[in-house]
Amino acid sequence: MPKISNKGQQMPESPIRKLVPYSEAAKKKGHKVYHLNIGQPDIKTPDVALEAIRKVDMEVLEYSHSAGFESYRKKLAAYYTTHGLPINTEDIIITTGGSEALLFAMGTTMDQGDEIIIPEPFYANYNGFSTASGVKVVPVISGIETGFALPPIADFEKLITPKTKAILICNPGNPTGYLYSKEEMQQLAELVKKHDLFLIADEVYREFVYDGGTHYSVMNIPGLEEYAIMIDSVSKRYSMCGARIGCIVSKNKQVMAAAMKFAQARLSPPTFAQIASEAALDTPKSYFDEVSAEYLKRRNILVEELSKIEGVTVAKPKGAFYCIAKLPVANADDFAQWLLESFDHNGETVMVAPAAGFYSTPGAGQDEVRIAYVLKKKDLVRSVEILKEALKVYNSK
Amino acid sequence: MPKISNKGQQMPESPIRKLVPYSEAAKKKGHKVYHLNIGQPDIKTPDVALEAIRKVDMEVLEYSHSAGFESYRKKLAAYYTTHGLPINTEDIIITTGGSEALLFAMGTTMDQGDEIIIPEPFYANYNGFSTASGVKVVPVISGIETGFALPPIADFEKLITPKTKAILICNPGNPTGYLYSKEEMQQLAELVKKHDLFLIADEVYREFVYDGGTHYSVMNIPGLEEYAIMIDSVSKRYSMCGARIGCIVSKNKQVMAAAMKFAQARLSPPTFAQIASEAALDTPKSYFDEVSAEYLKRRNILVEELSKIEGVTVAKPKGAFYCIAKLPVANADDFAQWLLESFDHNGETVMVAPAAGFYSTPGAGQDEVRIAYVLKKKDLVRSVEILKEALKVYNSK
Ligand SMILES: Cc1ncc(COP(=O)(O)O)c(C=O)c1O
Ligand SMILES: Cc1ncc(COP(=O)(O)O)c(C=O)c1O
Repeated sequence: MPKISNKGQQMPESPIRKLVPYSEAAKKKGHKVYHLNIGQPDIKTPDVALEAIRKVDMEVLEYSHSAGFESYRKKLAAYYTTHGLPINTEDIIITTGGSEALLFAMGTTMDQGDEIIIPEPFYANYNGFSTASGVKVVPVISGIETGFALPPIADFEKLITPKTKAILICNPGNPTGYLYSKEEMQQLAELVKKHDLFLIADEVYREFVYDGGTHYSVMNIPGLEEYAIMIDSVSKRYSMCGARIGCIVSKNKQVMAAAMKFAQARLSPPTFAQIASEAALDTPKSYFDEVSAEYLKRRNILVEELSKIEGVTVAKPKGAFYCIAKLPVANADDFAQWLLESFDHNGETVMVAPAAGFYSTPGAGQDEVRIAYVLKKKDLVRSVEILKEALKVYNSK
Repeated sequence: MPKISNKGQQMPESPIRKLVPYSEAAKKKGHKVYHLNIGQPDIKTPDVALEAIRKVDMEVLEYSHSAGFESYRKKLAAYYTTHGLPINTEDIIITTGGSEALLFAMGTTMDQGDEIIIPEPFYANYNGFSTASGVKVVPVISGIETGFALPPIADFEKLITPKTKAILICNPGNPTGYLYSKEEMQQLAELVKKHDLFLIADEVYREFVYDGGTHYSVMNIPGLEEYAIMIDSVSKRYSMCGARIGCIVSKNKQVMAAAMKFAQARLSPPTFAQIASEAALDTPKSYFDEVSAEYLKRRNILVEELSKIEGVTVAKPKGAFYCIAKLPVANADDFAQWLLESFDHNGETVMVAPAAGFYSTPGAGQDEVRIAYVLKKKDLVRSVEILKEALKVYNSK
């Protein structure tokens, strides 16, 4: 029997994968499970996008251009420009989700054995894309004490080797909710220029910024044009996760030419989803105002309620829709499993994502969990109540 | 300025990419260009599939399961079973086109520096997926004299090294149109078992088989369960290229577990397209009968007309919708460019794909072109007429 590849063996599992059977078992017992573990918003997809799909009028469902429909790229460039990002049509390649854009960014900038520095905790699938690309992730730790601010530049510099090709940031961050300041972005810009590295910024949560904060895009730093690669997606912006449309954006012509060759090999991004995504650009501002107000309410109630629990520390997120909470437990993995396997409060329990899966440093984040606030306020309040009761029981075992 | 990766530099361009500007220039001059170079059928997408999209009734466009909707996988397994392939739901992972299935198959079975043997000429994007995966393509040549039959097994054996992990075939073949016989499939089965290799079969043209031929799937060889990986797609079967839905199929549990981790990293295949693909499974048999009859007519007329041209040899395709034609020219690349740049017959010309791009051996296929019969009969006849006139002019230069 032939053996699978080392890569295939080493591909990481999603951090919540092992919990899924326990969650299913809990549901079989008749328990209600509140899912604080997911990144799938419950927010409605804009009508304009779904309407465009219902009106689809074609005889042959054809491949699109490998870079995506030109009409879509043009409109998207106009959208960015309106939002203060100087991006042209030719700086954009439409991809199958932000996921594929990340794969193209790695493939374009890195070879087998090259290194990418990523502030941790980070979006767990960065590990998967790195393994698939033969790239080594070098984590630089950020801590809950600073609310997951950018680690000191000196910490990055200690990790740079001749194999380092890029720094990858997520802004605002999943799982941290941290929003990098203008100064932090500028420090990163100086760093990559000094060491001749690419700065890849995953900005899929760009629109989710609270408390009047400003998002500083990697595409908005003068002089960084040749270094900057932006990753974007319609998944979260329009609650269109199932579309699988994103894009890779750069002003570096060599990067775009190489990314285009990756794009040509896989032929084209999905046609229906591009139609919906192009239409979504006409979503009225009122939609975003409502969504933003809703997430803000959720964040506030979540952070407020969590902070009331003794021994719990939360880093108040400034963006996205996740937060990391430090719990008074030694092993959040065990706690998360126990919540599903052995606990309920009036027939209800919660599922959280143990944060260790978002760290690459062994042993880091053992007492932390990631909580997504993609549930209605009422359900969030109830979830935190369950968590509070659970911690009491768990810690008196 | 940071440098892009070696991989990014080495990613191959599509074989017709360089011709695109010439085709655009020809159109600007007012010339009509018949596209014999493409793999995008003009056949209508089944109504049931488009209807399902127009009726989409959802509030949130959500991620699907990473392996694809369970309902779709179940129905697809039933479809295969009806067509004589013993495939279960759990043997299937839905992918973003056959393209992604090929990437998963390579990632799952091969590491950087490993080798994959592929009979050439082959689908040009196999080169792209191999480069992206850090895998070395080792071609084994098949020739127009044998109609592109399977090369002798001894030729494969000469190429097998400790780094060889898989053999990849396309059946029926793009660009050859060759359909492997039961005996050829059995020889391949013995070979991979003897050397402990995977046999990856790209069967995206499975339904396009002419002259009463039978398609022998890699999934239908007893004893090959642990070695066989099948690649499939809705692109050609239902003329749904823009859907971007395919699948990877295997009974090897380790292969499927590893492929699942690649699938989880990219979250899910496109939701709208899965809805359309699931609905497409209800396409009436009459649709395929009509499509098949149409392609058969096209193939017959194309081969007949081409054969009438002096100095032209065609390998009569037994399946798919391409054929390789050997032309009385020294360099088909130059001829193809000349057709667009300097020739017209009553204001019309043709675009063909030089076959050298489908070979990996330097210098092979220089006098061959690939012709796709995805145009209406009338246009095919006219195209061959143009080709005939062009050859006269070109060869009397
Ligand atoms: C930080 C981050 N980047 C990228 C993605 C990928 O999203 P998609 O492929 O749906 O665009 C996600 C999805 O959760 C994410 O959280
Ligand atoms: C032989 C072969 N395999 C795979 C593909 C990929 O098709 P898709 O990704 O559209 O399923 C094609 C497309 O032309 C092909 O010809």
